[in-house]
Amino acid sequence: MIFRQLFERESSTYTYLIGCEETREAVLIDTVKSELDNYLKLLNQLDLKLICVLDTHTHADHITAAGALRTETGALTLLGEQANSFCVSKSLHDGDSISVGNINIRALHTPGHTSDSYCFVLEDQGQTYAFTGDTLLIRGTGRTDFQNGSASQQYQSLTQKLLTLPDHTWVYPGHDYKGWTRSTIGEEKAHNPRLQAQDEAAYVSIMNNLKLPNPVLMDIAVPANKACGNT
Amino acid sequence: MIFRQLFERESSTYTYLIGCEETREAVLIDTVKSELDNYLKLLNQLDLKLICVLDTHTHADHITAAGALRTETGALTLLGEQANSFCVSKSLHDGDSISVGNINIRALHTPGHTSDSYCFVLEDQGQTYAFTGDTLLIRGTGRTDFQNGSASQQYQSLTQKLLTLPDHTWVYPGHDYKGWTRSTIGEEKAHNPRLQAQDEAAYVSIMNNLKLPNPVLMDIAVPANKACGNT
Repeated sequence: MIFRQLFERESSTYTYLIGCEETREAVLIDTVKSELDNYLKLLNQLDLKLICVLDTHTHADHITAAGALRTETGALTLLGEQANSFCVSKSLHDGDSISVGNINIRALHTPGHTSDSYCFVLEDQGQTYAFTGDTLLIRGTGRTDFQNGSASQQYQSLTQKLLTLPDHTWVYPGHDYKGWTRSTIGEEKAHNPRLQAQDEAAYVSIMNNLKLPNPVLMDIAVPANKACGNT
Repeated sequence: MIFRQLFERESSTYTYLIGCEETREAVLIDTVKSELDNYLKLLNQLDLKLICVLDTHTHADHITAAGALRTETGALTLLGEQANSFCVSKSLHDGDSISVGNINIRALHTPGHTSDSYCFVLEDQGQTYAFTGDTLLIRGTGRTDFQNGSASQQYQSLTQKLLTLPDHTWVYPGHDYKGWTRSTIGEEKAHNPRLQAQDEAAYVSIMNNLKLPNPVLMDIAVPANKACGNT
């Protein structure tokens, strides 16, 4: 499997490129529109054909390159059915499988950060990879106070879905603000402060008292992303 | 093998943590002093004992945490013999091996960016990792215009040492300014613009005409790093 983690500094977003070494098909997860040319260049250099662009949710802090990549490459753009996006090629449902050459990506609906949040899971050479979007961050979790977010649902998504993955699973988040690039499910279970909450009520109490300001780009990014970034 | 790539945003430095899963011994490569507490916390959380701190060279753009980590953990600090550093625990020589539990790290002297530049190479589960410092960057190479740098020597270090590693070798550089986290030797051979130079003279000509300003921190960082960061 070809794998690259890319970092967009302004929004501290991680974008992931996953490609099949045999068929040369590839997928990008959580793209940033300003990086479009870099994605096209890298795909070309690695001799990969982009067939699919996934977003873990409708982002509020950056604009997706999904629509532009579809225009440039013909790739399908996918986003959770809960996004009610009029422009995606196809809506994602919980449990969907996405095939990228010999790689099989499972989509898990993990509402909480937003109602349309998904995580993507794959296996390669005995290693499980989880692309956890803004549901599970390294030593944190995504805020739950807008876009139909729900701390209660997020607790269920974390405990019933993500934390049931094997402890050695690599966690590749949608963002990191401290320079950490990956973690594992076992590490997060043990050391993520929010996952030490005793029960759902304790978790909800933590999340409902964060008192964070709205993302600067929110009023621009959310409608733009519902339109696949085609502003 | 336990492996983490960490990014320090101010100087765009990558720091690498490598640990042996069995003995729990670990090494850090190219640390940044302001991140000291984060390293100690991560080592503690991952149940790792730091035994060695490596620097790929005497940095001009950030201050190493080597001395502070030695004080805190008792780890040895290592730097190339060419650095003439009075404070390191031990000087590195070309071809040295560093054992970290079951992991064997080879030190390659790769002068060019500075006269004391080293790269570190290891194998894990059939994968070769090269920590290339400022000798080989993703789609670039480190400047050669100070600290006894030499474009001619760098050309030799690249062509005679680094580029002779297998094409699938992962390249983990000392810095990246565009959000790229790793590459491969094959990819750099094919797509690194500087490695397309026809011969040593052409490479030297490119490097001697970069006309870059000095790093902002140079006059502070170089003497500080010769003192293991103990300013």
